[in-house]
Amino acid sequence: MVIDLNADLGEGFGIWRLGDDLALLDIVSSANVACGFHAGDPVTIRRTCAAAVDRGVAIGAQVSYRDLAGFGRREMDVDPEELCAEVLYQLAAVDGIARAMGGRVSYLKPHGALYNRVVRDPVQAAAVVDAVLDYDASLPILTLPGSAVHAAAAEAEVPTVTEAFADRAYTPSGTLVSRREPGAVIDDPALVAERAVRMVVEGVVTAVDGSQVRVDARSMCVHGDTPGAVRLARAVRDGLLEAGVAIQSFA
Amino acid sequence: MVIDLNADLGEGFGIWRLGDDLALLDIVSSANVACGFHAGDPVTIRRTCAAAVDRGVAIGAQVSYRDLAGFGRREMDVDPEELCAEVLYQLAAVDGIARAMGGRVSYLKPHGALYNRVVRDPVQAAAVVDAVLDYDASLPILTLPGSAVHAAAAEAEVPTVTEAFADRAYTPSGTLVSRREPGAVIDDPALVAERAVRMVVEGVVTAVDGSQVRVDARSMCVHGDTPGAVRLARAVRDGLLEAGVAIQSFA
Amino acid sequence: MVIDLNADLGEGFGIWRLGDDLALLDIVSSANVACGFHAGDPVTIRRTCAAAVDRGVAIGAQVSYRDLAGFGRREMDVDPEELCAEVLYQLAAVDGIARAMGGRVSYLKPHGALYNRVVRDPVQAAAVVDAVLDYDASLPILTLPGSAVHAAAAEAEVPTVTEAFADRAYTPSGTLVSRREPGAVIDDPALVAERAVRMVVEGVVTAVDGSQVRVDARSMCVHGDTPGAVRLARAVRDGLLEAGVAIQSFA
Amino acid sequence: MVIDLNADLGEGFGIWRLGDDLALLDIVSSANVACGFHAGDPVTIRRTCAAAVDRGVAIGAQVSYRDLAGFGRREMDVDPEELCAEVLYQLAAVDGIARAMGGRVSYLKPHGALYNRVVRDPVQAAAVVDAVLDYDASLPILTLPGSAVHAAAAEAEVPTVTEAFADRAYTPSGTLVSRREPGAVIDDPALVAERAVRMVVEGVVTAVDGSQVRVDARSMCVHGDTPGAVRLARAVRDGLLEAGVAIQSFA
Repeated sequence: MVIDLNADLGEGFGIWRLGDDLALLDIVSSANVACGFHAGDPVTIRRTCAAAVDRGVAIGAQVSYRDLAGFGRREMDVDPEELCAEVLYQLAAVDGIARAMGGRVSYLKPHGALYNRVVRDPVQAAAVVDAVLDYDASLPILTLPGSAVHAAAAEAEVPTVTEAFADRAYTPSGTLVSRREPGAVIDDPALVAERAVRMVVEGVVTAVDGSQVRVDARSMCVHGDTPGAVRLARAVRDGLLEAGVAIQSFA
Repeated sequence: MVIDLNADLGEGFGIWRLGDDLALLDIVSSANVACGFHAGDPVTIRRTCAAAVDRGVAIGAQVSYRDLAGFGRREMDVDPEELCAEVLYQLAAVDGIARAMGGRVSYLKPHGALYNRVVRDPVQAAAVVDAVLDYDASLPILTLPGSAVHAAAAEAEVPTVTEAFADRAYTPSGTLVSRREPGAVIDDPALVAERAVRMVVEGVVTAVDGSQVRVDARSMCVHGDTPGAVRLARAVRDGLLEAGVAIQSFA
Repeated sequence: MVIDLNADLGEGFGIWRLGDDLALLDIVSSANVACGFHAGDPVTIRRTCAAAVDRGVAIGAQVSYRDLAGFGRREMDVDPEELCAEVLYQLAAVDGIARAMGGRVSYLKPHGALYNRVVRDPVQAAAVVDAVLDYDASLPILTLPGSAVHAAAAEAEVPTVTEAFADRAYTPSGTLVSRREPGAVIDDPALVAERAVRMVVEGVVTAVDGSQVRVDARSMCVHGDTPGAVRLARAVRDGLLEAGVAIQSFA
Repeated sequence: MVIDLNADLGEGFGIWRLGDDLALLDIVSSANVACGFHAGDPVTIRRTCAAAVDRGVAIGAQVSYRDLAGFGRREMDVDPEELCAEVLYQLAAVDGIARAMGGRVSYLKPHGALYNRVVRDPVQAAAVVDAVLDYDASLPILTLPGSAVHAAAAEAEVPTVTEAFADRAYTPSGTLVSRREPGAVIDDPALVAERAVRMVVEGVVTAVDGSQVRVDARSMCVHGDTPGAVRLARAVRDGLLEAGVAIQSFA
């Protein structure tokens, strides 16, 4: 049994920091590195890539809308030609820096509002897939199963890797409960670790109505923007290791 | 006899355009493509690279300070670690896009205030050279002979290519007359073309005091941001061809 | 009979220019000055305000989403608290510059995607109105009749001024034909001038199906981003003057 | 005896925070509010102004070079016309927001590299003063005595307020020891508080060579970007109050 743990890293900008990158790099096997459009100045990208390479953590390009002021969390009606070029630019920039540090970008994960948009919008999803096709069609896209970007990638024969969320409540149909609803986020480390283990070992999670839902994920997303988040991520890692699950990048 | 003609291209941003890129691509052998920091959004970079590849024009990364509002024309006291990472980011982004279009970045040319700064500042010059070393030590830097960046590149064994300016007045010591002085810029197409030919064929230019100055350049810079500039660039090209000079990239 | 002519001005940024501001200032009675978020650096804002004051043209704050790369033409899901603060910031900045030049901002007009969004989205519309309430509740909002922002302003007792478009086709119900449909934009200066006169003198326009639609507008929007647009705007002005209509700001 | 305590506030941007604004607002009598060019998004500016008004803390416009990526800490060769317009834009934006919150901007303090530059560069200093003249010639500029901006303001009859730094070492000639030298910054709260009291009560500080230097300041700058800085600022406040010094804005 094997799972990948992925987290967002390098999300500072200039003087500003966000989260504890070094702590997370000791927990995860894949680092979603911010590419400069929602966060991530070049110095931060470079340091994050160097630290990831040092620890054998895989590097992903965490591409975003161009929106520093909104941290990429505001949906934007970007024209597909523009979105494709913007994703290509970000992907190339971070891959070049990763290579200069002795590594490489080995997958792509859309960030924030773009992540949510390409779950359901086939036009923007296709634009993201087109950027991968332009750059390196063998790079997998890390995404939710059943999403528009998953479908667009499949059609273009771009690989995908599916992810699950141990700290999020699931609906009976296997989608995530919206963050706006109570109980959407689980913050008890022991419970989250237990859910993570069950997702990996049994391929099942208990939904909000108590029903059992199948989860088929090769990666699990953890967060690190607060001290509590880092503790929770560590609990997930420890729980998985104790259950005999290997933590290993899919790349 | 052979010379390269280089010009700045892709210097629009979003809705805004600057210069006639397609006209210039029929004149030059090297395109200094803006990388997004002083100009050049991803769509523009992509189109410019595609058009350059189509015409067999070499692509250079025209790296800059991060200064859209000032078009990279304001000197900035950027920390060398930061400058190096910023140059690396820009270089990687444009090279990745160029490769996706079937080409590649084959040289680097600093833009505007950064160009002028690294002529005389060894610290920023070394930062630019370090970025090239990190990314691809075989990429030449297009610059002025005798500049700090030329010296830093030589020490690091990064290749350099020197350029001359047919439309600029020279001092008796072979440097450019400052733009603030009268007569610094020559705008008579016939005269500029004649100077260009003499620079290439005889390796000599007449300085402001009438003395003859040696010019040793493998590339000549032309401009294209006004209709007059495009006519002047074309006059240089035509003059060189009539004189039996081949126009060919150094890359 | 009296009408206001309004146009977007000051839409350059840094080195980049857009449209012929001085030509337009001789045509219009109201200048929608870009505030720096989609276009308009401080020097441009200052010059545009000074030129408007010189000519007795009223100054409006043309507020936008924060989106230089997309020229404010991409809808964004901005949180209302954020949108309100962003509109307030832009309004205050341009009003302060206008006052320093001897004038003042006398109305507000949302730009691009924000204009379209607040026609139909009551949440963003209320955020825009809240910014006006915070700054100066007597400032009118220039908008389409029947829009969400019109309704929100009416409820808050913020004045509104309605505008019409002489160069756009109207549906039988009095809304604009979408730009995506053929015939949405009319570019024959004589026809546009004739429609403008009829809108003002008779309060009527011929819709795409030939029916007559009532138009009740105190302002008419003209464009100036191309030489043809300036000619068309001048034809509208000349046609109105010949028909005995006074061109005068509503402010 | 009376002194003003001033500190930089509102220096977050979007998702990113810097310093403990609310803690500082209980310590200082003047808040230098970031205006959006080096830090400070509109929501942050608005909240900071509202909180300052609530506590009776005076609001200053902390104007900066346009440099989010460098936090305004990199000197820029900005053209004076441009710098003047940029300062005017920032000043107007924050004053308008402050007024909407029931307060007003009552002084201007340049930030970071601009602060240092206008200490010695008469051209940029005059540009800053020109912006104040344009906006409201009665607004004082908070600065170092003997600086170029002090001189330019005096010539233009714009008021100035001088400040001192309790946590910085002074040279025998009364200037600050450069941060690059050892001992430039004093971090012992008791010692800093003692120096602050002596500066105010006796108008004297002990320089690095042990000599006594006259200090004539109406304001004292404290920092708040780390927990230690807040403790130190509180120690300064407590020390001053215990010594019978009133802490009160100069505005």
